[in-house]
Amino acid sequence: MVSLEASPFDRHYGLEVEEATDELVRGRVEVRQELLQPVGLVHGGVHASIAEALASLGTNVGVVPEGKIGLGQSNHSSFLRPISEGTIHAVARRRHRGRTTWIWDVELADDEGRLCAISRVTIAVRER
Amino acid sequence: MVSLEASPFDRHYGLEVEEATDELVRGRVEVRQELLQPVGLVHGGVHASIAEALASLGTNVGVVPEGKIGLGQSNHSSFLRPISEGTIHAVARRRHRGRTTWIWDVELADDEGRLCAISRVTIAVRER
Amino acid sequence: MVSLEASPFDRHYGLEVEEATDELVRGRVEVRQELLQPVGLVHGGVHASIAEALASLGTNVGVVPEGKIGLGQSNHSSFLRPISEGTIHAVARRRHRGRTTWIWDVELADDEGRLCAISRVTIAVRER
Amino acid sequence: MVSLEASPFDRHYGLEVEEATDELVRGRVEVRQELLQPVGLVHGGVHASIAEALASLGTNVGVVPEGKIGLGQSNHSSFLRPISEGTIHAVARRRHRGRTTWIWDVELADDEGRLCAISRVTIAVRER
Repeated sequence: MVSLEASPFDRHYGLEVEEATDELVRGRVEVRQELLQPVGLVHGGVHASIAEALASLGTNVGVVPEGKIGLGQSNHSSFLRPISEGTIHAVARRRHRGRTTWIWDVELADDEGRLCAISRVTIAVRER
Repeated sequence: MVSLEASPFDRHYGLEVEEATDELVRGRVEVRQELLQPVGLVHGGVHASIAEALASLGTNVGVVPEGKIGLGQSNHSSFLRPISEGTIHAVARRRHRGRTTWIWDVELADDEGRLCAISRVTIAVRER
Repeated sequence: MVSLEASPFDRHYGLEVEEATDELVRGRVEVRQELLQPVGLVHGGVHASIAEALASLGTNVGVVPEGKIGLGQSNHSSFLRPISEGTIHAVARRRHRGRTTWIWDVELADDEGRLCAISRVTIAVRER
Repeated sequence: MVSLEASPFDRHYGLEVEEATDELVRGRVEVRQELLQPVGLVHGGVHASIAEALASLGTNVGVVPEGKIGLGQSNHSSFLRPISEGTIHAVARRRHRGRTTWIWDVELADDEGRLCAISRVTIAVRER
């Protein structure tokens, strides 16, 4: 399995995965000083990284057992509302399971459940 | 000025800015173990983070002197070619300077100058 | 009101709007020969046009009464499955209602309910 | 060859192709009443359609001779400046030629050469 324990960058910014199937992946990141951009908000790259990680993980849950691998192809993140403290709660839902690409929609919310970012991630499926 | 020295997340993953005007921003990140995803390639979130940082910095070079601030609105990164070692070389070029949004195209290349990711970043310009 | 009857291009390719609120818009387009690309599939631009129209219409349902107008800012359409006959059934759901931008997710399906394209559309809200 | 003469939708909205190689494609569309949205501007779907057509055509110039076909996978168009009359001048430049996807950047300008929309289009390359 491609496990997240083996993902150094996701550990580096602090992703914890709570649930991972090939249809839905949940994770969370506690906001810490080192995740902020200059004016004290969570850096957009953190949101994009979380989305990328969850979509990639969910795809690999599905395709690794078939001898394939999922690699990020496109990540389109929209930032709706700043977060500066608390926890980022992320849920990735699969929208498309094609032969060569899977597409996921990821929602990132704050502790009050307010939507802070949404991301559409396309994962390419390749032979290993 | 919104300086990058004050950007904790960009320091966290190791961005060095080499040049920053309101039309072009250059930066680099040395690939280290902590930037990789499970199969040993640079995590897509790193590319997205670099693009976000450069576009945001360039916009703020332009708008902060006018009492405004640029905040990321959308980041669409496409991953073309994996990087696993060396240095990521990034160049952000402004494509649009509107009243309320600026748009940047960011290219990320490896040490051989091969294009590894491209990113289109929209920065919203707001009153402070 | 900004009504669709007054939208020449949407008439030109044949959009029929079935329901329009500021949260959800439904429409349909019958596949005709003139909507196809060279190999006999519905042209991607038709899907993008439908998504653009529904998102714009729904936003204007909400903001025109406040003396504002919604204008398309970004349209990101992903094509999942070709359609070559029957009817395109589209549903736009609002994902974000900000002060300056609204974001919509649009699903386009065929007569069997299979998802054929998805689109994320950002509409900028301006003073008239 | 997949020729544009055989593309009914592109004829329907009026695309004229001026140049087409596997690296660069140029086209134009004269603004007519039937291309407008409710407030008299060119419909965003027209810009997206032009971008989709040129990127698809350029890819097919390259891959059809190899027995393959290019089909649109993703179209992300950003609208920068409205057009209401004159001619839309479009140029598509290839940014990536991969084994399974090609990526194009398309610029759409008005008669004064002002950039009105930009589009990033990903074309999937499949066996026929």
